Amino acid sequence: MMVRMTTTRNTPPPRIEHDCIGEMAIPGDVYWGIHTQRAIGNFTVTGIPDAKHPQLVRAYATVKRACAEANRELGLIDGDAASAIVAACMEIENGALADQFPVDVLQGGAGTSLNMNMNEVLANRALEIIGRPRGDYARIHPNDHVNHSQSTNDTYPAAAKLALVDALGPLAEETRRLMRAFHELADRHINDVTIGRTQLQDAVPMTHGQQFHAFATFLKTDLAELEALVPRLTVLNLGGTAIGTGICADLRFREAATAHLARITGLPVTAAPDPIAAVTDMSAYIAVSQSVKNLAVHLKKAADDLRLLNSGPHCGLGDLTVPARQAGSSIMPGKVNPVIPECVDQCCFMVFGMDTTVTWAAAEGQLQLNAFDPVIIHTLLEGMDTITRAMAMFRERCVDGIRVDTAVGRRHAASSPSTSASLNDAIGYERAADVARRASESGRTVRDVAGELSGLPDDDLDRLLDPIALSRRLGQTCRERQ
Amino acid sequence: MMVRMTTTRNTPPPRIEHDCIGEMAIPGDVYWGIHTQRAIGNFTVTGIPDAKHPQLVRAYATVKRACAEANRELGLIDGDAASAIVAACMEIENGALADQFPVDVLQGGAGTSLNMNMNEVLANRALEIIGRPRGDYARIHPNDHVNHSQSTNDTYPAAAKLALVDALGPLAEETRRLMRAFHELADRHINDVTIGRTQLQDAVPMTHGQQFHAFATFLKTDLAELEALVPRLTVLNLGGTAIGTGICADLRFREAATAHLARITGLPVTAAPDPIAAVTDMSAYIAVSQSVKNLAVHLKKAADDLRLLNSGPHCGLGDLTVPARQAGSSIMPGKVNPVIPECVDQCCFMVFGMDTTVTWAAAEGQLQLNAFDPVIIHTLLEGMDTITRAMAMFRERCVDGIRVDTAVGRRHAASSPSTSASLNDAIGYERAADVARRASESGRTVRDVAGELSGLPDDDLDRLLDPIALSRRLGQTCRERQ
Amino acid sequence: MMVRMTTTRNTPPPRIEHDCIGEMAIPGDVYWGIHTQRAIGNFTVTGIPDAKHPQLVRAYATVKRACAEANRELGLIDGDAASAIVAACMEIENGALADQFPVDVLQGGAGTSLNMNMNEVLANRALEIIGRPRGDYARIHPNDHVNHSQSTNDTYPAAAKLALVDALGPLAEETRRLMRAFHELADRHINDVTIGRTQLQDAVPMTHGQQFHAFATFLKTDLAELEALVPRLTVLNLGGTAIGTGICADLRFREAATAHLARITGLPVTAAPDPIAAVTDMSAYIAVSQSVKNLAVHLKKAADDLRLLNSGPHCGLGDLTVPARQAGSSIMPGKVNPVIPECVDQCCFMVFGMDTTVTWAAAEGQLQLNAFDPVIIHTLLEGMDTITRAMAMFRERCVDGIRVDTAVGRRHAASSPSTSASLNDAIGYERAADVARRASESGRTVRDVAGELSGLPDDDLDRLLDPIALSRRLGQTCRERQ
Amino acid sequence: MMVRMTTTRNTPPPRIEHDCIGEMAIPGDVYWGIHTQRAIGNFTVTGIPDAKHPQLVRAYATVKRACAEANRELGLIDGDAASAIVAACMEIENGALADQFPVDVLQGGAGTSLNMNMNEVLANRALEIIGRPRGDYARIHPNDHVNHSQSTNDTYPAAAKLALVDALGPLAEETRRLMRAFHELADRHINDVTIGRTQLQDAVPMTHGQQFHAFATFLKTDLAELEALVPRLTVLNLGGTAIGTGICADLRFREAATAHLARITGLPVTAAPDPIAAVTDMSAYIAVSQSVKNLAVHLKKAADDLRLLNSGPHCGLGDLTVPARQAGSSIMPGKVNPVIPECVDQCCFMVFGMDTTVTWAAAEGQLQLNAFDPVIIHTLLEGMDTITRAMAMFRERCVDGIRVDTAVGRRHAASSPSTSASLNDAIGYERAADVARRASESGRTVRDVAGELSGLPDDDLDRLLDPIALSRRLGQTCRERQ
Repeated sequence: MMVRMTTTRNTPPPRIEHDCIGEMAIPGDVYWGIHTQRAIGNFTVTGIPDAKHPQLVRAYATVKRACAEANRELGLIDGDAASAIVAACMEIENGALADQFPVDVLQGGAGTSLNMNMNEVLANRALEIIGRPRGDYARIHPNDHVNHSQSTNDTYPAAAKLALVDALGPLAEETRRLMRAFHELADRHINDVTIGRTQLQDAVPMTHGQQFHAFATFLKTDLAELEALVPRLTVLNLGGTAIGTGICADLRFREAATAHLARITGLPVTAAPDPIAAVTDMSAYIAVSQSVKNLAVHLKKAADDLRLLNSGPHCGLGDLTVPARQAGSSIMPGKVNPVIPECVDQCCFMVFGMDTTVTWAAAEGQLQLNAFDPVIIHTLLEGMDTITRAMAMFRERCVDGIRVDTAVGRRHAASSPSTSASLNDAIGYERAADVARRASESGRTVRDVAGELSGLPDDDLDRLLDPIALSRRLGQTCRERQ
Repeated sequence: MMVRMTTTRNTPPPRIEHDCIGEMAIPGDVYWGIHTQRAIGNFTVTGIPDAKHPQLVRAYATVKRACAEANRELGLIDGDAASAIVAACMEIENGALADQFPVDVLQGGAGTSLNMNMNEVLANRALEIIGRPRGDYARIHPNDHVNHSQSTNDTYPAAAKLALVDALGPLAEETRRLMRAFHELADRHINDVTIGRTQLQDAVPMTHGQQFHAFATFLKTDLAELEALVPRLTVLNLGGTAIGTGICADLRFREAATAHLARITGLPVTAAPDPIAAVTDMSAYIAVSQSVKNLAVHLKKAADDLRLLNSGPHCGLGDLTVPARQAGSSIMPGKVNPVIPECVDQCCFMVFGMDTTVTWAAAEGQLQLNAFDPVIIHTLLEGMDTITRAMAMFRERCVDGIRVDTAVGRRHAASSPSTSASLNDAIGYERAADVARRASESGRTVRDVAGELSGLPDDDLDRLLDPIALSRRLGQTCRERQ
Repeated sequence: MMVRMTTTRNTPPPRIEHDCIGEMAIPGDVYWGIHTQRAIGNFTVTGIPDAKHPQLVRAYATVKRACAEANRELGLIDGDAASAIVAACMEIENGALADQFPVDVLQGGAGTSLNMNMNEVLANRALEIIGRPRGDYARIHPNDHVNHSQSTNDTYPAAAKLALVDALGPLAEETRRLMRAFHELADRHINDVTIGRTQLQDAVPMTHGQQFHAFATFLKTDLAELEALVPRLTVLNLGGTAIGTGICADLRFREAATAHLARITGLPVTAAPDPIAAVTDMSAYIAVSQSVKNLAVHLKKAADDLRLLNSGPHCGLGDLTVPARQAGSSIMPGKVNPVIPECVDQCCFMVFGMDTTVTWAAAEGQLQLNAFDPVIIHTLLEGMDTITRAMAMFRERCVDGIRVDTAVGRRHAASSPSTSASLNDAIGYERAADVARRASESGRTVRDVAGELSGLPDDDLDRLLDPIALSRRLGQTCRERQ
Repeated sequence: MMVRMTTTRNTPPPRIEHDCIGEMAIPGDVYWGIHTQRAIGNFTVTGIPDAKHPQLVRAYATVKRACAEANRELGLIDGDAASAIVAACMEIENGALADQFPVDVLQGGAGTSLNMNMNEVLANRALEIIGRPRGDYARIHPNDHVNHSQSTNDTYPAAAKLALVDALGPLAEETRRLMRAFHELADRHINDVTIGRTQLQDAVPMTHGQQFHAFATFLKTDLAELEALVPRLTVLNLGGTAIGTGICADLRFREAATAHLARITGLPVTAAPDPIAAVTDMSAYIAVSQSVKNLAVHLKKAADDLRLLNSGPHCGLGDLTVPARQAGSSIMPGKVNPVIPECVDQCCFMVFGMDTTVTWAAAEGQLQLNAFDPVIIHTLLEGMDTITRAMAMFRERCVDGIRVDTAVGRRHAASSPSTSASLNDAIGYERAADVARRASESGRTVRDVAGELSGLPDDDLDRLLDPIALSRRLGQTCRERQ
């Protein structure tokens, strides 16, 4: 009972706020206001609040800070208010008030709800900082002060793009770690030959090292792509306000806010050359989606190949085994399955779905706005997170523990009829084909058959058919290439 | 402090369990065992546990119950064990132990982890029921008793499909409610004319009632499609065990388990004619995905049309207004946007992404199994839930409150030059085109121009050009059609 | 020179026609008129004329015939004109005038160009039939006579859906043939055991017959789906005219035209219950796309599995060989690749793209019309044609010539450690797992190890581990199942 | 009859050729050989021959020329043969022998058929050049000479990527032309105000010039993206031969062939750093697909916006009219539809389907090869061609003829309640909202209401609410921005 009384005493009474629709009571202990409260009631689809994307919340606070600094510098809002807003922004950037962003991520309205949520939380927290009660908007107003010189049309995409840049960090870091894991694997197997297969048919010898190295190279390509996204994601439109005309914004604001944001983030933030076009151009999101998709294609490739090479134990390719992570069957005793690569594949399918959602949303803008940013941001952040975690899982619970069966590889490398290709120069494609055919039909090796039929000295044959030498002709070793 | 002591005393010590990989300590207070414990550690991608899909957990328990009944009936496991397992299943079906299914929804292994999770929880709960300690698997074993005559290959898809049937319930119910809401709207506006537009160009008169009625008709089509999914989702493969051969299962089990499941669920459950094909046929999932996608296409259509008709207030079509739910802009005072239809659209984009993910997963099976059921089930259940909630939101916060501007509609209906089509019969297409052209160029109505040029009596013209009569030629009124 | 004179004498001089935009000269030797001529100039994207879809052209003529019959029956146009139009329709239905449909398949305008093209060709051909010159539209007018009681909004979708029904014929026929080919293959290998693989890991024995039979079963499912499309594709909207209001159409026309069309085609043609909704409901197209996609998923499955089973010759699964169709490499002598299944896969990827295009077009209608029927029809007809041809190619040049390596299959079936599953009942899952582990580690067969460890008599072991018996537990043989 | 005799005399008799499968008669009058002949019979899906992609045929000849030059320079094949091959390549590059590439574009085998087709045609044409009969392969052999140091694995992707670079030319050129057309339109309407709309709701004033300028800016972004593809498409893998090991190729060949190709094409051709990875990395194709898709998103945006702005004539937005290209309806006299933008939209849907097909094919490689290059190349070239033509059509038959209704725009600009945003600074968001509400409710303009309520002097109001000034705040005029 005492507790209740205490609680009652501490909890401020509800505030009455109003907007163009009417009045509403806001719980006294929250920082948000009427716009947020309405949005909570309006959007009830996923149950996932904006708070679940901390990158987005933090980035939005950063954008608001840069704008407050610009407003202060240009004398557009009073200095005390600006300082309090800046302080409040920094708190949120540091993780405070994370529970104050409760609106569903799939919100209509092009992000206005999150913008107003941020404006309201910042206004009320700033009021507290200067010793005023929440709701005293005459002193610091969500729109007139916090949102000064801004609109959702310019700040939401700015926050969204910075959030994506933020999410690129761990994504790139995990890409790099997985790349290194494949490199280490490649180094360990630099001299372990096996057969290369094209169209699933035995082709010519290669080393396991080369194969793993290729996976690393794919990821190197992805890293370069991910990095190339940053300059695209930092072309922002601050000061563009509604539809990019700059209405309500001091003409100096665009440059000032952009400069402050660049300074605060350390990113190459610039103002879009055509502010009208910038409002509706979704190219940057499509580019992010594509790069994440391409990374997923590469991960699927590695996961699929490992599943193939791990096939067996007796009736498959058997080149390697991925680590046993759990019993594979409720009925077949002792069966172990490549569950980690299978999980990776499923993450890739999620990413392919992400790309579809993003493309739809990006292509459905109308006139001066595309109202569908929220689903794009949500989907991209979720997809990036999924693939980031998938790579960590892949590395820790699969790639690091791969064991190559070197005896199988050597046997494979020796057995392929296609190695007769290395005789082309010496005896011509057609006679080499004859050797291949006979080897294939008899089950003997090309070396054996060629010893009889090619007329070439044994030394030459040994040299021409040495699998390691064949694999290394272009000189790529694992270490030297990165 | 007492509580702590009690807790300590009550919490059983960790159990040591083993599998084909080795031993592991399992927390003493959980019902799951080593297979689940390993899977928790293995799959760390979404952070969403199987428990978040209660339909799936419940359906799996139902499947296990039917199998236990069949095993008991056929004398394949001892009666006490069977009864305890059945009792445990019913507890889970009723919502108990919901926190005992912690494995990530994006699990590799084709669902083996959830199957083993269920087997372990049921075994341990059944042991409790018969007064034995958890882990006393010699008495009731997760594999030998709970999973008897079963495999993941047959029970997981069975549970997944029943879960989808379960999810169809609320989906159909919300579809029906939204259909009714559109019907009521249609009834209210049965006599309110406006212009029909094709290719966004003014065409011929129609009533608002007809337009809303069409939205209801779309949903009626969807309801029929959703219902038609049930027979496809209830062709199951119990007794097929590994790859559909029926290995390890008594030959009578297939029929018995199928019959028990039909009885328990009240659904038309049947056994697949070709048990080998049934293991890898993903047609039912693709059909579900398509039907949900088609529903989304219809919802997008309604949401998009409402956004168009609501455009304005001064420079748009202005036929109707959707209810104001929140202030629309952080910068433009008084602006109100159609945020609910915008949110509906975004849900549809999520569903389109779902269809991509499902198609990928469904098309990537290999040989005797498609290992990607888990991502399919997760994605379908999530998409169905999203669209179910989207319809409730759409109805409550938009459709129910739509207001038609009848004056605007009447003006529109009178102004379209294309109404001259109704003169075709009387004066021919070419002379009617002349009337239309003059009306269009002068800004006068077709009625006016035709009065001068057509040579037709005024009475005929009034009759031919009466918008309500034109709209109703085929007799469809709103009420009579459903 | 004589030839030129003759030509000059025979070629009629250009006709001058006019429309609401102005006048235009039409070549004297064509049957089309100004609407077609403008469309030829307007749409220049694919270079593929409507004539390349003969099903569409023929179906449109059939629709026009049914409408002309209805107009004649109801006395809406004069009998001579009607008879001539009917005669002209039948000529086109029989393949005449195929070169008179030159408009690009990707035409804007929701199909109005093809409708007017058809109206013009029919009018001019009908005029010829009654001995009048082309262009004498006062006698038989493209709009007032041929198009009487009709619009593009109702006839184009009707023709499109009948064209799809037409294309379903050869598609189903090739599906059936391929199904039979798999059945024959299954029959031939009814007793040839091999290993079933789940998650690419050795599972339990099955026969090749079962595997091929499953492919046939997939196609049986597809056939049922294709057939189920017909009733959906024959709900048409004749008499709905513009936007489904029935404007300009006699009230009896809907029933009459629908009945004539049903009679002529022998199909269960019905009138849509809600004519307004019918104009914009794209469900039937989405259903077709989905069914074709599902068929493609099944074909991909078969093609992928055959590529896997054909892998080798020495370092792959080696269960079977697809027929050698061509040398596989420009550099590796004697290498042969499974080029036919690879081609099938590529056709499936085209179909997956088709589904994307159809979904986009279907979801982008606005208000009373979806203007994007033409791209839907074109894409569906093209996709159906591709997959029809792919199945013929698959059957003739791959499936019919598959050779199973029965010795490899027997070795595989014996070697899998997972066959220990069949001991579960006798010795329990855990002891069976021990047998499996020892077999796997030592490279011995389960039979060998179980002989030592299980304590079961040899007879029991032979019976429990007999691969054919294991494969056949559920009794499915190939022949009996269909 | 003489003609026949002559023909008979001139037509060489069939040649008998052989491969690893057996012998075959080749028509005497063709340049191709047995590999091509088999492929003609094998692949029968689309009916579209490789010849329909002249960029691909020409690029392949260019690649072969560079290789022949490298072989000659390094003394790997004899000089006369090399010179003849080079001469034959140049003929094909100049368009000769275009009918000699008859294999279906959807060929299995990863492009081996086109490579061998090219090798055979070049060998036979080179033989002719040196005065030898076709088929005299002992002198110039398709594999041993033309294909020397090469494989399909390296030359096919090289040709494919150069073909894409080739196709980028006209694509970029049409993009540029359309961009200019939008710029000219923008310049013409630099001072014509209208209302900007966000979420289809009246927002704040802008000029038509700004709107058209934004379309141009989108295309500028696309041009930059298209140009950025070139360096990705010119990382090639010559000398990598089978699976990238360089087997059969002199070690100096990689550098020499790459240098020759760079010299011949004038492109920045480089050798891939990791030749193994290069064989299976599909990133460049995915990047092309994404850029074309992004361009399509922009075109769809412009087409959709124009359709919206053109809506009417009486009951739509009515801001502008696209040129009338044809009568719009078979039944509604005088109706004219925006058929060109509708056609553009459909082309975009085709491109979205292309992206799906490309993603599938790119993600389905296995081990050392992705066999699905042919469907990727075909689909990309077709999609690029479609969108290139779509832009030309869009420009010529729509954009160039757009007429803006300046009176409507001015009325729109004055009427929007949201212009009250420009009063925010002077009277605060809340009082401005009050002005907006009153304006909206009364149908009066913001200027009127503010004159009464704001307390601001008329001069200030005129200045604050001047639409041109509002539109131009950020100073962007049309001309200066590009």
